[in-house]
Order: sequence, then structure tokens, then C-alpha cells
Amino acid sequence: MKSAVVIGRIMATRKVESLTGVKLLLLRRTGWDGTPMKEVLVAADAVGAGAGEHVFFVEARDASIAVQTNPPIDAAIVGIIDGADFESGY
Amino acid sequence: MKSAVVIGRIMATRKVESLTGVKLLLLRRTGWDGTPMKEVLVAADAVGAGAGEHVFFVEARDASIAVQTNPPIDAAIVGIIDGADFESGY
Amino acid sequence: MKSAVVIGRIMATRKVESLTGVKLLLLRRTGWDGTPMKEVLVAADAVGAGAGEHVFFVEARDASIAVQTNPPIDAAIVGIIDGADFESGY
Amino acid sequence: MKSAVVIGRIMATRKVESLTGVKLLLLRRTGWDGTPMKEVLVAADAVGAGAGEHVFFVEARDASIAVQTNPPIDAAIVGIIDGADFESGY
Amino acid sequence: MKSAVVIGRIMATRKVESLTGVKLLLLRRTGWDGTPMKEVLVAADAVGAGAGEHVFFVEARDASIAVQTNPPIDAAIVGIIDGADFESGY
Repeated sequence: MKSAVVIGRIMATRKVESLTGVKLLLLRRTGWDGTPMKEVLVAADAVGAGAGEHVFFVEARDASIAVQTNPPIDAAIVGIIDGADFESGY
Repeated sequence: MKSAVVIGRIMATRKVESLTGVKLLLLRRTGWDGTPMKEVLVAADAVGAGAGEHVFFVEARDASIAVQTNPPIDAAIVGIIDGADFESGY
Repeated sequence: MKSAVVIGRIMATRKVESLTGVKLLLLRRTGWDGTPMKEVLVAADAVGAGAGEHVFFVEARDASIAVQTNPPIDAAIVGIIDGADFESGY
Repeated sequence: MKSAVVIGRIMATRKVESLTGVKLLLLRRTGWDGTPMKEVLVAADAVGAGAGEHVFFVEARDASIAVQTNPPIDAAIVGIIDGADFESGY
Repeated sequence: MKSAVVIGRIMATRKVESLTGVKLLLLRRTGWDGTPMKEVLVAADAVGAGAGEHVFFVEARDASIAVQTNPPIDAAIVGIIDGADFESGY
């Protein structure tokens, strides 16, 4: 899993049928501590994430099983991050 | 998902049978705002995209489920981009 | 498979249902001899690994089959490394 | 899909059973206009390609579904390229 | 498929159950002509490869179908290389 912040969304009227009703969100990759990175990608939303929320997403075939219609997607948001506990000494 | 612009197509007479009737389009990767990139790839067309259209595509196994014959492909166009809404402040 | 050391964990209350009860651990990549690398990632835990343990994990679709609920994950810890035998002369 | 030119083949007597009878070809990656690249890989042949032919291949799980025995392969040649039409102006 | 030489093995007592009895070998990547590279990885053994042998392996989901218990692995040795025939002139 990788982490990101939601920065917008994509509008698409013509698309494959199983994508109907699937929200496509623009994400900016972040470190697990929230530090923003350069990479911007689009992922399907499986948890109801909103702009500015810190989320984690899966890529490739696993993305498809996160959404009920099993649409052809290769990235999906599967959780909202509450926080990260780094153990000291490692 | 990644975004691209359609720049041409590939002709192939000898191919695996499940690719019969599948349109193979040449794409140039773009940013989500439409900025063209260097990378050129070929993807199967699942939405009837034409030259110059701004599309988004999926890669790997997900590409195969976008086309009815489930052909052995690793990239498929699954939607035409109408626009992108970037939320300010993120 | 790649090797890593467990350095913490991620908390997430809102997430897809099949992730309920799945421990999400922060890993730092290491060489197979234990040398730490820069990359930090999050993987589901399928073996009960704890902080500081030297583990190996799988990526992509294979991660999902390591956990009973088949959640949408793309990295899973599948073993704890006891040691590595390097044959001399290769 | 990516394009390549066939530059040779691999011999292997001891292999997993589902690879029996599967031709393993050495490919040099090319651009879609035929320009040779540095990368050399091995792919299973699903179309009867010969030395010097300009082909396109799929990678990852999709490769396996291109060959009848569904062998554990991660690259397969699925078509011979007749030509590429680049639309002007994009 | 990629090529490698077997340089050792990994010991792991605590692991997911489907990995019981699966030999995990340390590989050093090589070119198809046998030239050693820097990258070292671990792959499950599906052909009974030994130290010093020149092998080829598959990655991602395809690795899993090479081993009877379908364990969560993302790399598997599927053949021993006898030799490579490079066609002259390409």
C-alpha cells in the first residue's frame, strides 16, 4: 500500500459501463508521515474519501476487487489514515 | 489509471485469435492536465476513442477484463476525460 | 520476495470491510543480509511479525491470497527470516 | 503492449511441465517505429514468430492466458506488427 | 522471464502454511549470456535448481501458479537454461 492526499477528481462521461458511479479521485503521493511527493495519479474511491484527506491505496489487480462492480481499474483508495506509529530504534 | 492522448494505431494481421476486432491505439502519455510526455505505448480500445482524444487507461491484468473477449493485453483505454477538478489548497 | 525490518504500524478506522482485523505494518526494505535501505512501505501481516523482526514479503496480487479475507492489499509479510546461506564461489 | 524484434531463442531441457512445447524467444525491445533499444528479454511465442520479425508482446499475468497450457510465464508474443499509423498533429 | 544464477538459500521457520516445503533460493540476476548483475532476489524453486546453476524465473502472479500449493510468492524458478542461440544480423 502507498499513501496519498486527495487533491481533486476526474470527470468522464464516456467510459466502460462498470465504471458508472465509481468516483475517480486525483491523488498526490505522500510519505507515510504525510510529506507530499511529486507524483499525481488517479484512483477509484472505495471508502468515501474527500479533498485533503490522507489515504492509502492499492495498485494493480487488487484495486479491482476493492470495488463491487470489479471495474477495470489499477488503483483504489482502501482506507483513510488516522496515524502512523514509528517504533524507535529501528 | 494514467492519462494519454491518442496519436495513431497499429496494424497486425497475424495475432492471437482473441485480439480479432480489437483496435490497438498508439498513445502518448500526458499529465492529468493534458501536458504531453515522452512515453509512447499501445493500448486496446474499450470505449471507441479517436485520434487527438484525451483518454485514461488501465495497465496489467485489469486491461484484459475491459474487453469482452478477455484477450491477452496489458493496457486498455477505459474512458475519455472531460476535465479534471483540482481542489485548491492541497 | 523482498526482505525488510518491521519499524511500526498504521492506524486506520475507516477502511474497506475486508481489511477489518488485518494488521498493517510499516516496513523498511533491507538487503537479504539485513542491511537497511531507504524505502519505507506498508504491508499486511500474515505471520504475526513484531517490531524489529527481519521478514520477507510478497507484492501485487499474491499479497491478497496470503490473508484469509482476500482483502485488496498489494503487499503482505509471509515469513520471518531465520538466516541466509550464501554459497561461496558464485 | 510493447514492441520488439526476435533475435534468438533459449534452450531449456529441465523446466516446469506446462512449458513443454512452448518456444522461448530472445527479444530486443524496439520503439513502435522499429528503432532498436538496449533491453533484451525472453518471451513465450504465441503466434509463430521468426528471427528478425517485428512483434508486440504482453507482460505479467496476461502472458499466461496467451498460451493454451497457461504456463507460468510473464511475457508472451501476441502479434506480428505490419505497420504503425501516426496521425499528424498530435 | 529473466535469467539468474543460484547463489544460496533462505531459512524461515515461521511462515504462511502454503510455503511449507517450498525451497526459497537466493538468486543473482544475470544477462541471458550469463553475465552477472548487481540485483539479488529470492525466488521459490519449481524445478530443483542447485547452487551455481543458470536458471530463468517468472515474477508476479505467474510465480504462484508454478508451485502446487499456490503459495503467496512473487518469483519462481521455472527452468534451467541449457544455452541461448543469438541469430546473427539482428
